[in-house]
Amino acid sequence: MSGPDLGKIVLTVGDWSPDGWIEHLRAHVGPDDLIFSDGKQAPPPDICDQVRYAIAWKTPDGFFGNFPNLKAVLSTGAGVDHLATRGDIPQGASIIRVIDPDLTGRVTAWTVMNVIAHHRQALGYLAAQKEAKWRPLPQSSAPDVRVGLMGYGELGQSAGAVLALLGYDCAGWARSPKPDAPINVFAGQAELEPFLRRTDILVCLLPLTEDTRGILNRDTFSKLAQDGITGGPFVINGGRGGHQVEADLLDALTDGTLLGASIDVFDEEPLPSDNPLWGAPNILITPHTAGMSAPEALVAGMVRNLIAFAEGRPVDALVDRSAGY
Amino acid sequence: MSGPDLGKIVLTVGDWSPDGWIEHLRAHVGPDDLIFSDGKQAPPPDICDQVRYAIAWKTPDGFFGNFPNLKAVLSTGAGVDHLATRGDIPQGASIIRVIDPDLTGRVTAWTVMNVIAHHRQALGYLAAQKEAKWRPLPQSSAPDVRVGLMGYGELGQSAGAVLALLGYDCAGWARSPKPDAPINVFAGQAELEPFLRRTDILVCLLPLTEDTRGILNRDTFSKLAQDGITGGPFVINGGRGGHQVEADLLDALTDGTLLGASIDVFDEEPLPSDNPLWGAPNILITPHTAGMSAPEALVAGMVRNLIAFAEGRPVDALVDRSAGY
Repeated sequence: MSGPDLGKIVLTVGDWSPDGWIEHLRAHVGPDDLIFSDGKQAPPPDICDQVRYAIAWKTPDGFFGNFPNLKAVLSTGAGVDHLATRGDIPQGASIIRVIDPDLTGRVTAWTVMNVIAHHRQALGYLAAQKEAKWRPLPQSSAPDVRVGLMGYGELGQSAGAVLALLGYDCAGWARSPKPDAPINVFAGQAELEPFLRRTDILVCLLPLTEDTRGILNRDTFSKLAQDGITGGPFVINGGRGGHQVEADLLDALTDGTLLGASIDVFDEEPLPSDNPLWGAPNILITPHTAGMSAPEALVAGMVRNLIAFAEGRPVDALVDRSAGY
Repeated sequence: MSGPDLGKIVLTVGDWSPDGWIEHLRAHVGPDDLIFSDGKQAPPPDICDQVRYAIAWKTPDGFFGNFPNLKAVLSTGAGVDHLATRGDIPQGASIIRVIDPDLTGRVTAWTVMNVIAHHRQALGYLAAQKEAKWRPLPQSSAPDVRVGLMGYGELGQSAGAVLALLGYDCAGWARSPKPDAPINVFAGQAELEPFLRRTDILVCLLPLTEDTRGILNRDTFSKLAQDGITGGPFVINGGRGGHQVEADLLDALTDGTLLGASIDVFDEEPLPSDNPLWGAPNILITPHTAGMSAPEALVAGMVRNLIAFAEGRPVDALVDRSAGY
């Protein structure tokens, strides 16, 4: 390959198939320099010593401790929560977040579809269709529907741009103020409540950190707008299962605190067949497919980031390990 | 009201409730000048003689013949097919099409939701959810999905802009070439086949005219891309029921020529409970709610158009009665 010598790269992708990753990485990395591991068994010590970079998904605890010369780890998925807080990545090593337009586009489309589906009562029409009943339902105008984007990074901004073009009244909520954002972005814990009070459809696209774990709870649900023209609030979670308190979500859907939800991520994945969320009222469940890391789309960006990092140039995003994202 | 004297305006809205229309028109038109009719019984002849404008939806044949001094008719809905071809509107009278951003936005959101739903296999996930099964399905990237917009007027352009932002590979098909359009627009009968051959998801937002009646037929369905990354073609009809040959649609869904469809409009509305389309494979049916004419949004634009017309200034769109739209 052209560019700097990256040394050896270890690839480990949990229970995913490694084939696509290997195929596409081979175009950039010499065969002796790409080390695939199932994450359980470490490569031989002399190989481990030469590994400078890891491309990883859901790696068993302790795995990274096998690589004393590790300089950086890249996640194959959008989330870095599986990397940010673990102790086996050497303190001096960096965690690089690759921003991939393909992955962002997938999450955006899933989010937009679910916002419209709840606003336009898709589940009500599906029920009417099942009964072969022509049953028009009340319909509000998009500018009267207040979407609240929890998380206003790459994913939140992308979803917000499309939703704004569709006429929705969007606001964001982020850790820090975003004065240059095209929509109003509420910031920090102090502005969480006013953000929730003006929100009819809450979209979670947050990173999972100690601050955001369990943020989709009964208290949050109960603060959402009850006076909205949609007739009640909806929650859409395309973030991480750890963002929602499952029992609270089930209760809120059952007692009508929430009129509906779209949930892509769960504490336990695959979601077990006996989990009552499957049959909760007005829920749309997808099996962690809001986004998808496509090797053919991601690998080029990963290699670009590795080369930039090796040459001391800026990467897409460096994870702040103390903040957790 | 300010502006020119519009004379008397007759309002007739078929089987819709007139209340919202009357309430919002009252803000612009004096009480003696707004004449509501159920469309069956004409007002007294001396009143009819003073009527210069009609705001109308699904009016019985012959109704407009009661108004010898009619200057223009406005439709309350996006379609003007119910007006364009009828013989009882005096030859000298105009038909004005009001372009309403609110109505356009509603149709756009419905269209976008249905494109994403078919691309992202929403019906497959609903089926898996019903079985409480975690079943990820193959997922293509939006740039690999070719959306074909049949009709590239106000509605087609609006849907195309959002779909393009979502990354879909969009093309249009229109009666005449649109060299300045941001996407490739195929034109006329000669370019219909190449347009269909490159289309994975066909969206119909055409006006209903003698040229477009029955255009969604077996021949059209069979020319759609069979090699698409979506695995087969989909049809979305937000135009008019007259665009589709119902028997062909049912056959194509049943034999797999089409992998799915979203249909909002039908020959007979309400769609009778015994119509087999209700239970066709992979169909999403909505009861003519893709768009909705909201009086609070439309009336101001209607009055603006009436005043412009009365003063000889341009209106949003004049219907070409020979073309039918």
